[in-house]
Amino acid sequence: MFYHDKKLQYKVRVDKPNPAFARMLQQAIGGIEGEIRVCLQYMFQAWGCRGPVKYRDMLLETGTEEMAHIEMLATAVALNLEGASNTLKDQVAANNPLVEGIMGGMDPRHILSSGLAAMAVDSNGVPFNGSWVVGSGNLAADMQANVMAESTGRVLATRLWEATDDAGMKDMLAFLIARDTMHQNQWLAVLEELGGVANNHPIPNSFPQSEENSAFSYSFISTDINRPDSPNTRWTQGTSIDGKGTFTFDHAQPHGQEPKLGPPIPEGHAQKEQMESGGLGGLVDKVKDKLL
Amino acid sequence: MFYHDKKLQYKVRVDKPNPAFARMLQQAIGGIEGEIRVCLQYMFQAWGCRGPVKYRDMLLETGTEEMAHIEMLATAVALNLEGASNTLKDQVAANNPLVEGIMGGMDPRHILSSGLAAMAVDSNGVPFNGSWVVGSGNLAADMQANVMAESTGRVLATRLWEATDDAGMKDMLAFLIARDTMHQNQWLAVLEELGGVANNHPIPNSFPQSEENSAFSYSFISTDINRPDSPNTRWTQGTSIDGKGTFTFDHAQPHGQEPKLGPPIPEGHAQKEQMESGGLGGLVDKVKDKLL
Amino acid sequence: MFYHDKKLQYKVRVDKPNPAFARMLQQAIGGIEGEIRVCLQYMFQAWGCRGPVKYRDMLLETGTEEMAHIEMLATAVALNLEGASNTLKDQVAANNPLVEGIMGGMDPRHILSSGLAAMAVDSNGVPFNGSWVVGSGNLAADMQANVMAESTGRVLATRLWEATDDAGMKDMLAFLIARDTMHQNQWLAVLEELGGVANNHPIPNSFPQSEENSAFSYSFISTDINRPDSPNTRWTQGTSIDGKGTFTFDHAQPHGQEPKLGPPIPEGHAQKEQMESGGLGGLVDKVKDKLL
Amino acid sequence: MFYHDKKLQYKVRVDKPNPAFARMLQQAIGGIEGEIRVCLQYMFQAWGCRGPVKYRDMLLETGTEEMAHIEMLATAVALNLEGASNTLKDQVAANNPLVEGIMGGMDPRHILSSGLAAMAVDSNGVPFNGSWVVGSGNLAADMQANVMAESTGRVLATRLWEATDDAGMKDMLAFLIARDTMHQNQWLAVLEELGGVANNHPIPNSFPQSEENSAFSYSFISTDINRPDSPNTRWTQGTSIDGKGTFTFDHAQPHGQEPKLGPPIPEGHAQKEQMESGGLGGLVDKVKDKLL
Amino acid sequence: MFYHDKKLQYKVRVDKPNPAFARMLQQAIGGIEGEIRVCLQYMFQAWGCRGPVKYRDMLLETGTEEMAHIEMLATAVALNLEGASNTLKDQVAANNPLVEGIMGGMDPRHILSSGLAAMAVDSNGVPFNGSWVVGSGNLAADMQANVMAESTGRVLATRLWEATDDAGMKDMLAFLIARDTMHQNQWLAVLEELGGVANNHPIPNSFPQSEENSAFSYSFISTDINRPDSPNTRWTQGTSIDGKGTFTFDHAQPHGQEPKLGPPIPEGHAQKEQMESGGLGGLVDKVKDKLL
Amino acid sequence: MFYHDKKLQYKVRVDKPNPAFARMLQQAIGGIEGEIRVCLQYMFQAWGCRGPVKYRDMLLETGTEEMAHIEMLATAVALNLEGASNTLKDQVAANNPLVEGIMGGMDPRHILSSGLAAMAVDSNGVPFNGSWVVGSGNLAADMQANVMAESTGRVLATRLWEATDDAGMKDMLAFLIARDTMHQNQWLAVLEELGGVANNHPIPNSFPQSEENSAFSYSFISTDINRPDSPNTRWTQGTSIDGKGTFTFDHAQPHGQEPKLGPPIPEGHAQKEQMESGGLGGLVDKVKDKLL
Repeated sequence: MFYHDKKLQYKVRVDKPNPAFARMLQQAIGGIEGEIRVCLQYMFQAWGCRGPVKYRDMLLETGTEEMAHIEMLATAVALNLEGASNTLKDQVAANNPLVEGIMGGMDPRHILSSGLAAMAVDSNGVPFNGSWVVGSGNLAADMQANVMAESTGRVLATRLWEATDDAGMKDMLAFLIARDTMHQNQWLAVLEELGGVANNHPIPNSFPQSEENSAFSYSFISTDINRPDSPNTRWTQGTSIDGKGTFTFDHAQPHGQEPKLGPPIPEGHAQKEQMESGGLGGLVDKVKDKLL
Repeated sequence: MFYHDKKLQYKVRVDKPNPAFARMLQQAIGGIEGEIRVCLQYMFQAWGCRGPVKYRDMLLETGTEEMAHIEMLATAVALNLEGASNTLKDQVAANNPLVEGIMGGMDPRHILSSGLAAMAVDSNGVPFNGSWVVGSGNLAADMQANVMAESTGRVLATRLWEATDDAGMKDMLAFLIARDTMHQNQWLAVLEELGGVANNHPIPNSFPQSEENSAFSYSFISTDINRPDSPNTRWTQGTSIDGKGTFTFDHAQPHGQEPKLGPPIPEGHAQKEQMESGGLGGLVDKVKDKLL
Repeated sequence: MFYHDKKLQYKVRVDKPNPAFARMLQQAIGGIEGEIRVCLQYMFQAWGCRGPVKYRDMLLETGTEEMAHIEMLATAVALNLEGASNTLKDQVAANNPLVEGIMGGMDPRHILSSGLAAMAVDSNGVPFNGSWVVGSGNLAADMQANVMAESTGRVLATRLWEATDDAGMKDMLAFLIARDTMHQNQWLAVLEELGGVANNHPIPNSFPQSEENSAFSYSFISTDINRPDSPNTRWTQGTSIDGKGTFTFDHAQPHGQEPKLGPPIPEGHAQKEQMESGGLGGLVDKVKDKLL
Repeated sequence: MFYHDKKLQYKVRVDKPNPAFARMLQQAIGGIEGEIRVCLQYMFQAWGCRGPVKYRDMLLETGTEEMAHIEMLATAVALNLEGASNTLKDQVAANNPLVEGIMGGMDPRHILSSGLAAMAVDSNGVPFNGSWVVGSGNLAADMQANVMAESTGRVLATRLWEATDDAGMKDMLAFLIARDTMHQNQWLAVLEELGGVANNHPIPNSFPQSEENSAFSYSFISTDINRPDSPNTRWTQGTSIDGKGTFTFDHAQPHGQEPKLGPPIPEGHAQKEQMESGGLGGLVDKVKDKLL
Repeated sequence: MFYHDKKLQYKVRVDKPNPAFARMLQQAIGGIEGEIRVCLQYMFQAWGCRGPVKYRDMLLETGTEEMAHIEMLATAVALNLEGASNTLKDQVAANNPLVEGIMGGMDPRHILSSGLAAMAVDSNGVPFNGSWVVGSGNLAADMQANVMAESTGRVLATRLWEATDDAGMKDMLAFLIARDTMHQNQWLAVLEELGGVANNHPIPNSFPQSEENSAFSYSFISTDINRPDSPNTRWTQGTSIDGKGTFTFDHAQPHGQEPKLGPPIPEGHAQKEQMESGGLGGLVDKVKDKLL
Repeated sequence: MFYHDKKLQYKVRVDKPNPAFARMLQQAIGGIEGEIRVCLQYMFQAWGCRGPVKYRDMLLETGTEEMAHIEMLATAVALNLEGASNTLKDQVAANNPLVEGIMGGMDPRHILSSGLAAMAVDSNGVPFNGSWVVGSGNLAADMQANVMAESTGRVLATRLWEATDDAGMKDMLAFLIARDTMHQNQWLAVLEELGGVANNHPIPNSFPQSEENSAFSYSFISTDINRPDSPNTRWTQGTSIDGKGTFTFDHAQPHGQEPKLGPPIPEGHAQKEQMESGGLGGLVDKVKDKLL
């Protein structure tokens, strides 16, 4: 269960409110790289965690922290929107490019729907989507998902840092960027503890590799129509990264058949012509005979 | 079944077309606070209404009226877009901030996708979503949903009214705002007729309260980590609003256990390390013994 | 910011795991009536709350509690899924109705995607959607949204309670139903404190009613083609519920014009025939003259 | 504006309620082939119609009719659900395959969310999506969209007709199938009146074909890696269907360059290695020199 | 299976990068009229094609070509974004209308999420949605869907062509417009080969028309409340377009009953008042007797 | 650009068609772990790739291969559906649990919408969503996203392998599992070549760590309300995984303020009570003075 403190995890200060930057910050709240995603992702992974309990504990610790990050960003959005629209009517009504530029730069729903506050959407107003919350039940796969989330999340945060000269916002983002640094390391630590690449991969490591079609397990398949020679890269020669095979280089070729599906079932009401085995050569005539 | 009149329910006039305002109006068409939502919501509630028939009748009356409101707003969008883009090519091509401002202020899909007409989307171009159509089969819950829809809807309409100086648009919005006033009252009238708060709540009133865990039915649970004293507010003391209990104030505490899930099933292909009861202390060594 | 306790707010016990019930519980997690929605809704309302601070505080208290409810339900889902699929292969492979029934009754993604754990989706696997998180910036509208959420939420919880005979699950649901009772009362308490219906409505109460088109503010408009007499219901006569008008009953009639839109702009590439003012009488001939 | 009649456009009778069929009917309500889509599509096309007014009128007539079809189907869903769940608790609790089969065959939200009534979703519970409402502003393109909608809609209706032996349901569907027949013909009539294929295509016919790259306007491009000879089909030889060109057959080949994008901008925070022009040959060493 | 060539199908050149135009191009990538949709639509139709194999072959040919069109447009987006944001910080920070106009004109996620590259979204950042991929299993319905897709697609492409003066972009679009011309013709050729309108319609042509309610098969039903005379248009008189009936004109009238649903089931927890057969006349009194 | 071969990359054989398994396979087509996602993800990463061209080349190679995997799975779905519904009418009509079980086990849209063929949806019929296509412009972040995609993808494939005894399906899945093994290794190879964890992390490595708030860069923050001692795990002590810091263990505490937002702006139409600085003590009286 959960508790809160009315104070923020880190200070949020906006020196010069900027509605366009408020819109950009929404990406870090409700976007696929954002904090709602990692908060719920770590929580759901914790709540479904099977295996050593220390991983469940750790996920719960950090999932709880991420909720505080949503809070910081939501506060930052509200502060960036303050004072933003007190001349709204004049602006829209004026119908000149400058004014429309203001409207364009901000999210109109920050005025219309939320009354100058954050929403659970991204920087284009697209709602947060629960499909982004990945918890596979496989610990290593989940850690990879978490490293990925913190990597794209830190990339986003550094881009937001570049996009503002507001000292308060830069300070808040410098904190969040640091936390992303820690969280990348944290999930990597689990992967290391689980034995590193050599033990984890191929994920899942519990599936017997003898059951996979091993002729294709370490072959780089080139689909290039010009059939180039092997580029002699790390992924086309030498021992595989998981240490369990040797990379080879092959040109794509079909190992399968041309698919043949059966005729449509009558109840599916395809066109009649699809059901006739003889093709469509004399179609129009046959149709006339039958229908007209 | 339904009929139409080619005339509008109320006049729609745009004195000075404004594509940025057209975009804002989309929120009232395809947004969660918008008219497609209430139209379908009242219709579906009517079509599934069980109990006294007068409620079904009433829902059908007003659902039908709301279709006319979508029509008015869609007409308003089209009229606001007229003349908007006849210099489109010059504008985009010029690639200067003024021009991009124009593009930014309007929805580009009003040019690209609809040919200067309304769409079933909100002011950010996010499509209408059928999940917003609430009909629970419980009349009081549905009336609450309707009061809520008309409340956020009227808030939206007043914000649109503030955002324009176009006399025609203000006149149309003054009509729609009035209808929202009526519709709020209308759904409240049903709630009053159903016996008001004291009879309706807790919704559903057909569930025997003896079956709920009554120790928690009227307790305000504070999750504040600083464990403050009761704020002595209306919701922490005195008779509950539904008249069926007494408000108390409590600090959050766990009444449950720390969850223990079973190990993963083999077919679920978690990592091997999750399946081993002994933890991960000697993990790497064990792994080496087995795999390498 | 936030803290957690590894223990649950209330005990979660499943006596007889049931994957079909696990699927049903998902509605209370990721559905529109579910706990992710109310958790984020109260949080976002708190984070954007303007006005008396006690409302911000209260929203934060209860938003934090709701996170614990997601946790309880997610735990319940995981426990209901335990033991569910250990004969999975046999079942699907057998290809007989009994087996497919098992597959049909549960969410296949509980096996395929989450490894027997909860997901951020509803009982049909439709992902949670951020658009459901309503925070309008208007306190009374938000309280209506919250009453509505807790009303449909409690209806859902009682239906889940009916759908199980598992004593552990019934106990957990009896707790959650009790909390919904409290939360309905809590939001109603704010509405009472804000002056009740007479002061709050029409929401927003800050818009001057003199600006709305008052001829339509308290009129029930019947769209029934048979033009029935007034049904003499609470919403067609007497003082309006907000006390600011008198209900009347009217038959729908057009007060507006038949809309006339301008011709398409050339750059929008409608069909040529749409751009010709003279209609389409001699269309084919004209076309032939020009094109062939 | 709109009016309603409390009676249905056509009678809806369910002889033997069937919750699984109720679920299937949802496809015809809230699916992409369903009635909400065509209702809103014809409405939005009407409300944005520019050009001869008779097309606007016609779209409005039929859009209004479609609302009555949603109503019929919603009624059919509610009737098919009656009696469905009065033994719900026993069934789910029993946890045997037969019982779970019942749950699996119906939409659980018909119990949990709607109280045995229709919802604005498809047969998998996926909500209606406003993006399906196509209105392009080009009359011929819109008519094609409408023919397509009525074609897939009639295919769906015939499949539903095959899936039931309930005489009442078959009668209702026989009516809806007939209306789809008419509506297909109706939109085709507009296309004929607009000059038929020869005049309409390529849609839009207002774009001067001299501006398109005519070398590619009537060439069937085969991407088959085996470079087959022309199949001598209708679309590889002879006059094009629009009568404005001659079909040819060509093998795909690149007419363009290998794309070259510039280096990342510093503020975008790609990896350092992406910004170095000299490639990655000595990457690790260089990195060590700089960082460690 | 598939192969690629590193060269583009047609050259992509951007003379003057324009981030606002990059945003507009996204509609042709990830919008409902865009290339991801047609690529996947033709592929899925091919992979599920039953009946004469030549149609499967043809769909596969063109589905593969469309992948090359996504590639061209994605390249065009990246090139239009180059140089776009090197003064990003200054711009957002400056907080003046010109600057916000720039932000507004482009998609902020082109900076924040993709690092100046294309995404699988439309021009408002709304993600591509798999529901748009139509493959019905009925060949004629699918061809109609394809004609529709290429018609709205070509309308979009011509609007993009109008929106730019960049010679490179115009050249690329002139190629894509030409391909849309071909593809419209191609799908029309299948429809012609299948016997044309007279044989194909009503789609599906495999459903016996004797089973539909023929009284309604060729009647234009006017829902106009003013009950106008027949407009004597092509769709209200004469032989139907499919040649199988005669158009008539009728005024809408109810052929069905007023629906009567049963009372709610107890387990569904509607309000008590919905379950009482005697209506709500003495509701409040009855409630008092029972509850207070 | 792209070419195809009518033959499949690997053979697809279904010995005993099983519609319930067809539904499960949809997860590998249109689910977040599925092949449409990786196909488009690698393609979009290639098309936006900036930096050494060999990465662009590699992404294009494998993106093209993934298209062939969608094709194989779509073929497998169609074959599993063959023969599935030829007794459809009897089954649904029979309205007994066995029959509904059959309906429940399969996706009803496989009958209603696609005519026994694959769709661009997941195993619950939820459409593919373009938001899952991750391409950040940062090569290391993208490789992490790809490792994650192939990890969850291989977990899914092994679960499907467990869920069938059909020899043909097991053979196909053994091939796909092998390819996932290769693709995990392939993306890991790029990460190794880029310098491994020590060079790549924290991603992005181009942001100067001196700008982040280094006090928080390597601290594990425990939010546990019981303030436990450090668990002495790999992530709470010792050198950080990226080698650039030392892990510490800290208890969460607020470093920020309690947020204070300004009052609502008048045009936003919050409730009047939110705008009054004096709180709500005498609210009702004040309201009466003003309004009544």
